[in-house]
Amino acid sequence: MSKKINLIHKYSKFSDYWSPRIIAEMNDYQFKLVKIKGDFVWHSHTKTDETFIVIDGEMGIKFRDGEVKLSKGEMYIVQKGVEHKPYAENECKVLLIEPKGVVNTGDSGGSLTAEENVWI
Amino acid sequence: MSKKINLIHKYSKFSDYWSPRIIAEMNDYQFKLVKIKGDFVWHSHTKTDETFIVIDGEMGIKFRDGEVKLSKGEMYIVQKGVEHKPYAENECKVLLIEPKGVVNTGDSGGSLTAEENVWI
Repeated sequence: MSKKINLIHKYSKFSDYWSPRIIAEMNDYQFKLVKIKGDFVWHSHTKTDETFIVIDGEMGIKFRDGEVKLSKGEMYIVQKGVEHKPYAENECKVLLIEPKGVVNTGDSGGSLTAEENVWI
Repeated sequence: MSKKINLIHKYSKFSDYWSPRIIAEMNDYQFKLVKIKGDFVWHSHTKTDETFIVIDGEMGIKFRDGEVKLSKGEMYIVQKGVEHKPYAENECKVLLIEPKGVVNTGDSGGSLTAEENVWI
């Protein structure tokens, strides 16, 4: 028997932004918690869709042809290959779901690229 | 650009128990909302893990060697092949994540087997 995971408890264990922590695996997919604030970089993931679920706060995702705003209890799936730029004015807690091995900055790289495979 | 999904709004669109509704797809995985109350059947999924996230209320999952109790904001991943029996004393709203084509009753069948591929 594995253990249950309390999302809010897990969020209390870290405070840095744009640095996803893995909390669970389902087959070859991972659940990651991330706190975001400010602007991320434009990027895309060429091989996979990416799911955002807002656990607390508000965030937006800019696309080349528009944007979506998300609040607590809302989710959005960014389709494979679609350029996007997440942002949040104030701290927002997000649950990401995506296959193992996805890099947060996709093909763009840069200083916000997070270390991979960090569990919490 | 696809559309954002508001979980509570989607839950307001149905009221029957143990009948998952698909709300989104990520690659070959599906997100399903289900309202549960009472006892489900013992079953297992031989080919995949299955993720439960409690959106509102409380539920339990019995295993042959114990059980786990989950409240709002908690998640649990039932490992592939592990027999389990979800239950809830009062209505509980759950988000399920699993590959396309998973049948709710797994290998057990019976009257609680839900129609597949029902979107909401």
